Amino acid sequence: MKTHHYDTLGIGNAIVDILARCEDDFLLKRGLHKGSMQLIDEAQADALYADMGPTTMISGGSAANTIVGISSFGGTSAFIGKVKDDTHGKAFAHDIRAAGVTFTTEKAKEGRATAQCLIFITPDGERTMNTYLGSCQTLSTSDIDPALVEASFVTYLEGYLWDPPEAKLAFRRAADIAHAKGRKTALTLSDSFCVDRYRDEFLALIQTGFIDILFANMHELRSLYQTADLDTAVAALKQENILGVVTCSDKGALVIENQQVITAPAFPVAEVVDTTGAGDLFAAGFLFGHARGLGSLSSAKLGALAASEVISHVGARPQHSLHDLAQAQGLLP
Amino acid sequence: MKTHHYDTLGIGNAIVDILARCEDDFLLKRGLHKGSMQLIDEAQADALYADMGPTTMISGGSAANTIVGISSFGGTSAFIGKVKDDTHGKAFAHDIRAAGVTFTTEKAKEGRATAQCLIFITPDGERTMNTYLGSCQTLSTSDIDPALVEASFVTYLEGYLWDPPEAKLAFRRAADIAHAKGRKTALTLSDSFCVDRYRDEFLALIQTGFIDILFANMHELRSLYQTADLDTAVAALKQENILGVVTCSDKGALVIENQQVITAPAFPVAEVVDTTGAGDLFAAGFLFGHARGLGSLSSAKLGALAASEVISHVGARPQHSLHDLAQAQGLLP
Repeated sequence: MKTHHYDTLGIGNAIVDILARCEDDFLLKRGLHKGSMQLIDEAQADALYADMGPTTMISGGSAANTIVGISSFGGTSAFIGKVKDDTHGKAFAHDIRAAGVTFTTEKAKEGRATAQCLIFITPDGERTMNTYLGSCQTLSTSDIDPALVEASFVTYLEGYLWDPPEAKLAFRRAADIAHAKGRKTALTLSDSFCVDRYRDEFLALIQTGFIDILFANMHELRSLYQTADLDTAVAALKQENILGVVTCSDKGALVIENQQVITAPAFPVAEVVDTTGAGDLFAAGFLFGHARGLGSLSSAKLGALAASEVISHVGARPQHSLHDLAQAQGLLP
Repeated sequence: MKTHHYDTLGIGNAIVDILARCEDDFLLKRGLHKGSMQLIDEAQADALYADMGPTTMISGGSAANTIVGISSFGGTSAFIGKVKDDTHGKAFAHDIRAAGVTFTTEKAKEGRATAQCLIFITPDGERTMNTYLGSCQTLSTSDIDPALVEASFVTYLEGYLWDPPEAKLAFRRAADIAHAKGRKTALTLSDSFCVDRYRDEFLALIQTGFIDILFANMHELRSLYQTADLDTAVAALKQENILGVVTCSDKGALVIENQQVITAPAFPVAEVVDTTGAGDLFAAGFLFGHARGLGSLSSAKLGALAASEVISHVGARPQHSLHDLAQAQGLLP
């Protein structure tokens, strides 16, 4: 019997993605580090936008994408994040609610614009992200609705929340509420540069029992333990008292649980169009499976399926029902 | 030797497309006529948007899509259309310029918002469009830059321009300038309901030599000549002193020239994801070929190729270089 109302509550930066294709040369000329996320200010955003090719605008945000993915699997989910009451903020709110997600965070009436992420997609399908945090800077503890946290099987937090100054307090408050109710918390490390910025804090969260489930890709995990060798990093993660999920791009994923390592294959993709959201959607599948009582391997397979869908088109949110895809693959009844 | 600066100048409604998937049931319940375009007011737009699924925002507008397609083939092109100086208007202006198109129409500083088209994509890939014309209503003759018209091999006009009250005057002025300079004019019939609204005027344009090239799909052509039979409609078009291009969906296209009918096959597509822009991009390929001195069959093949690219993904503008695709297919040197 389900004892929770929401399979997952996500807390993260509420962002609209503005995506365009570019050649590798463009990244080099601009000094952009392929595959990563960098923070930019408003003036940098304006300058970079002026140089972008023709764009597509789709709601994004790492944890928000994950939450929408859970909803697409047929899961129940909610999101907390801060937009402004402007055109982009209205689009973000519409899109996440239209995906079936509970989203009740009050919009900022003044101050900086809704956050945007300028994303460059190179011919290999890799994405390079440039985020102007805008109104996300104003997410605070008062935006954490305890009822949402208490009603959720897992509260899922993005590492990127360490960037806006007050958001980490909101994050801590949410985790405290979750644990007081006997709920779980999960963290994604978000980006290897993000890990670089907040390594000690992230390690402390993991080692003090603040976090129950950790999501990382191989780059982020190596950065966390400051090693170039994935095996060394995985060995270090095995020593933590945590459920670890490590995505390894087209090599699949590892689940580290009770000092055991389970391997799950990647799902085949005809053409990688745009990797934006691959990690977010892997987390969606895993969290949905986990909340519904599936084992780690089955949950990881749902993650791999969701990631394969989202990298087959432009944009970080699913365009097809993940529930239907999972049924067609025999992964859900 | 090229004696023109722009291969094509487009004049049309400047619109951002807001696209979402839906089931066929949704259209039935809402009384939306699948495959067509209907005009809606602001209140209707708000109500319909509230009912939409998660959206993708991409610049659109029929003639604007065509012009962007010509640029993607490596052609030179310009566009005239009216946006407001708001978030969507800025995105429209950015996107069309980023595609290499000359766009200098002054933005409206006040009045109605930039036009938007709410597009529903059914599982078969068909699109159903609902347009709020907004700032397009204010396009007027003063927006027609004679220098752009005179410098263009063809001035391409969309039938939808008959909807905003003053735009048809702008259209007429542009055609007069073009012909005075010995340039050509082209018209797309846009939509069968649009033909229903303005049949007599469109026939007069064709029969008085106001238009040199006519684009229509089979539904629009049958509507123009008020017949259920395509052969009858084609026979009627053969009697007009005009170059006619008739697209027939996956059956390919017909070119009617000097009372002869040339047939061009459709280009095969692995999966029809979203037909939005198919006709617009067919026109792009044909007009580019025509301006560069290719014959009608070769031009129609470029049109079919461009249409196949745009229906393979969400959105009405190409995501790949049409020039590169055409070279790979041996259609361009």
